[in-house]
Amino acid sequence: MLEPEHIIRLEDGPPARVVLLDQRRLPDEVVELACSSATEVAEAIRVMAVRGAPAIGVAAAYGLALAAERGEDLDAAEAILGSSRPTAVNLRWALERMRHEPSAERARELHREEVERCKQMATHAAALFEPGTRALTHCNAGGLATGGYGSAVGALRAAWEHGVLEHVLVGETRPLLQGARLTAWELEQLGIPHAVIADSAAASLMAARDVDYVVTGADRIAANGDTANKIGTYGLAVLASHHAIPFYVVAPTSTVDLATPTGAGIPIEERSPDEITTRFPARNPAFDVTPAELITAIVTETGVHRAPYVESLAALV
Amino acid sequence: MLEPEHIIRLEDGPPARVVLLDQRRLPDEVVELACSSATEVAEAIRVMAVRGAPAIGVAAAYGLALAAERGEDLDAAEAILGSSRPTAVNLRWALERMRHEPSAERARELHREEVERCKQMATHAAALFEPGTRALTHCNAGGLATGGYGSAVGALRAAWEHGVLEHVLVGETRPLLQGARLTAWELEQLGIPHAVIADSAAASLMAARDVDYVVTGADRIAANGDTANKIGTYGLAVLASHHAIPFYVVAPTSTVDLATPTGAGIPIEERSPDEITTRFPARNPAFDVTPAELITAIVTETGVHRAPYVESLAALV
Repeated sequence: MLEPEHIIRLEDGPPARVVLLDQRRLPDEVVELACSSATEVAEAIRVMAVRGAPAIGVAAAYGLALAAERGEDLDAAEAILGSSRPTAVNLRWALERMRHEPSAERARELHREEVERCKQMATHAAALFEPGTRALTHCNAGGLATGGYGSAVGALRAAWEHGVLEHVLVGETRPLLQGARLTAWELEQLGIPHAVIADSAAASLMAARDVDYVVTGADRIAANGDTANKIGTYGLAVLASHHAIPFYVVAPTSTVDLATPTGAGIPIEERSPDEITTRFPARNPAFDVTPAELITAIVTETGVHRAPYVESLAALV
Repeated sequence: MLEPEHIIRLEDGPPARVVLLDQRRLPDEVVELACSSATEVAEAIRVMAVRGAPAIGVAAAYGLALAAERGEDLDAAEAILGSSRPTAVNLRWALERMRHEPSAERARELHREEVERCKQMATHAAALFEPGTRALTHCNAGGLATGGYGSAVGALRAAWEHGVLEHVLVGETRPLLQGARLTAWELEQLGIPHAVIADSAAASLMAARDVDYVVTGADRIAANGDTANKIGTYGLAVLASHHAIPFYVVAPTSTVDLATPTGAGIPIEERSPDEITTRFPARNPAFDVTPAELITAIVTETGVHRAPYVESLAALV
């Protein structure tokens, strides 16, 4: 269920279509959603049938390839795919890489490369873990979020295989519960011991010394290391710092945006208040920005990067 | 709807009964629950039909008075009421005060006194607010939690009446959503502008300077000022400290437990994992302990108490 082709694939047809595991319906139902046009792929991204920064990059690449197969207007397809969600830079990154050759073959190659990057990151990140580690993660930075293997969950998977991981606490990740629905589902399939917690319980579990490392993914990493990720990540970083617990970001270089100098330049998506409550006024920022100084290390497929990030990240390109 | 007799009352009958607003069904339904014995009152406390430290103290007092009216075994009634939930000290406090005169009259007097304490606390606390304050609160420390008027929400209510409060952010308070269901409902009735947020959004809203004060209630305050309150409170206190935002605890002296030297001695209720998820393993601590050093001031009906709390709280008795 966690193989790349189960999470997202392009079927040649006819009719050609992009088929993806509908993440809105997990874990209760394992149902696929078939998209027959770039517009339908963009809609699947917008409604979060597919989510996770690397995965929506892969979806956009397949969407553009689908548009090319169908003879759609590629500029229009690129525009609608590129504007489907604002925070993750992977959308733009993937579309730029597809522009000169928007073929099915190129999209599949990009997908394979993203999964390969995850495995490389996981190896680098797992080497940071000490035996018996109890980790805390937030949202879903698993295979579902990357099109296979996973970034933060990939690191946990590798650490588990190396025998150095003991247990994972999973923040449920309100309002859409990607932790309770998706990460727990992945960890169950991987056989990794875990427990879901209310997001607000992280602080007291850190104080109780039940957390050795915090590990998350990223939606966009600015040139100075400031990192946008699911709302709640910044709070976990402050809490980890207060309790002297290392805080690691694990993300592919497709998530690094050297064109954005600091986190202040990253657009933060504000989603519908209805995701919080339909009865009273609500605010629903979907992401937050963790300042670089709270991040112990950023792990990409090229290795473990530490402060000053403005230098270590610039060296990636 | 927020008058003390709507929240909880003892009806003389016959048959005598304790009637309370069923907080599990708010805000969708405004339904009363009638308890015909001390055992039924204890069950209402256990399942959180009535919750909030002062309110469960009042409920226990009425429960003991009901047992006396019905000629029940008072030792047994006291035992079952006193063990219905572990963290709030108000249960024990109320039962001790009822022991020598477990009458309906005494229970009603205790209830009136708790509401009067709230109004006194509110006056002290509101004086701390500066004009234009945007406050953040967590869980429900409103009239529902105290049997009328409220502790933290009482302070917000007084500040609103004094014209110094601009807006309230309400943490939804997973897993049982007391913020999104109960506090928002109270603020709506009081006409106080508010917005519900995912608990994990508090950090980034603090960083954005959208929060001037954090104000919460308490379930038990140890002699040194360490304060147990709804899970998530401790994290908010760490975040407030990181952002140099004052953190106030507003609670009646019935919540102060001088017999418990520090927070380490406060029992933390672990509730069913099913409140988090029924599909995967989960952990569900219902309270956490905020160390005294993260609390700017503790406001009781006797005034505003500051560190060293071991002295300022001792002076209460």
